[in-house]
Amino acid sequence: MKIYGASASGNCLKAKWTADYLGLAYEWIETSVTAGETRTEEFLARNPAGQVPCVEFDDGRHMAQSNAIIFYLAEREGSDLVPDEPFARARVLHWLFWEQHAHEPYVAERRFLKHVLGKPDGEIDPKLAERGNAALALMDRHLSSGDYFANGRFSVADISLVAYTRAAPDGGFDLALYPNVLSWIARIERDLDLSPLNT
Amino acid sequence: MKIYGASASGNCLKAKWTADYLGLAYEWIETSVTAGETRTEEFLARNPAGQVPCVEFDDGRHMAQSNAIIFYLAEREGSDLVPDEPFARARVLHWLFWEQHAHEPYVAERRFLKHVLGKPDGEIDPKLAERGNAALALMDRHLSSGDYFANGRFSVADISLVAYTRAAPDGGFDLALYPNVLSWIARIERDLDLSPLNT
Repeated sequence: MKIYGASASGNCLKAKWTADYLGLAYEWIETSVTAGETRTEEFLARNPAGQVPCVEFDDGRHMAQSNAIIFYLAEREGSDLVPDEPFARARVLHWLFWEQHAHEPYVAERRFLKHVLGKPDGEIDPKLAERGNAALALMDRHLSSGDYFANGRFSVADISLVAYTRAAPDGGFDLALYPNVLSWIARIERDLDLSPLNT
Repeated sequence: MKIYGASASGNCLKAKWTADYLGLAYEWIETSVTAGETRTEEFLARNPAGQVPCVEFDDGRHMAQSNAIIFYLAEREGSDLVPDEPFARARVLHWLFWEQHAHEPYVAERRFLKHVLGKPDGEIDPKLAERGNAALALMDRHLSSGDYFANGRFSVADISLVAYTRAAPDGGFDLALYPNVLSWIARIERDLDLSPLNT
């Protein structure tokens, strides 16, 4: 399969890390969002939403939306990154939806504006810091009673959430305020065999 | 089971409609967001995110996040609202994630500000109309080649997307611009046995 992705995008790294963890072969096709490579006619035929990551399977079918991709790959491979039992599976889905609605739009967006586009703090909507910190605080409380987000074990929920959480300092978030989050990041980096970020 | 929900919230109606369609018995507990009923200590013990819908099952367990709830209920009941085959299932998940990331934050948020809080248009971030219309336009293009969002058949993806799409006129969106969306709304209202909204 081919993964169209931008290496600087946490959403894209989720797909890469999951494929690596599952031992899947793939071709990574670096695709720049800022250079407009996701808005070409050719790319829009793959994903009409004009976003990466987008996976192209060998039969020509495509799949977009990072969390749908990682859930699918893990389920297809029979990996315990996605549990079999419906309630346990829904616990994983809960965190995947929460990530896209309550975390990524603030934590990732502030990082994009500050770190990728280089905007000064004064030009960034203060709502992003406020809601991003609320998300990190909720994660910290949740992790006070467990090592992983769902069902007490490593799952695609952790892979999804760690992508932008470990890069949050690039967005001006102070992770020292969230000690449970910091130790969880180190745990997931070990599980995924990632080098710690020096942000 | 008990569904804690606000009748004016599309996210909450998704859970109600799915339970009704599946013929599940439940107690609806009307819970006002604007009156602060989702921020009490008692409610936060059910859902630390302080949001409705939140389902309380008879064994005392809880589940939040509208799309996780409807996916779970349909899967648990063995309904074809969630397909068995992993790729088809992922197609449904794709639209559920897209709804929470690209649609609800704009279409539902503008409706909330305009219709629920009564804000004048001039005080509403123009990004909400712009991105909400982009989401509706993408839906309209997608529906030009099919009657439903995923796999050519009715699924929880349609239930999720119809919730705020049918109420979009309350947010100042003109659905006459999106004829495929209009006929799809009528189709899903028939499938769910809902009366058309007069917005």
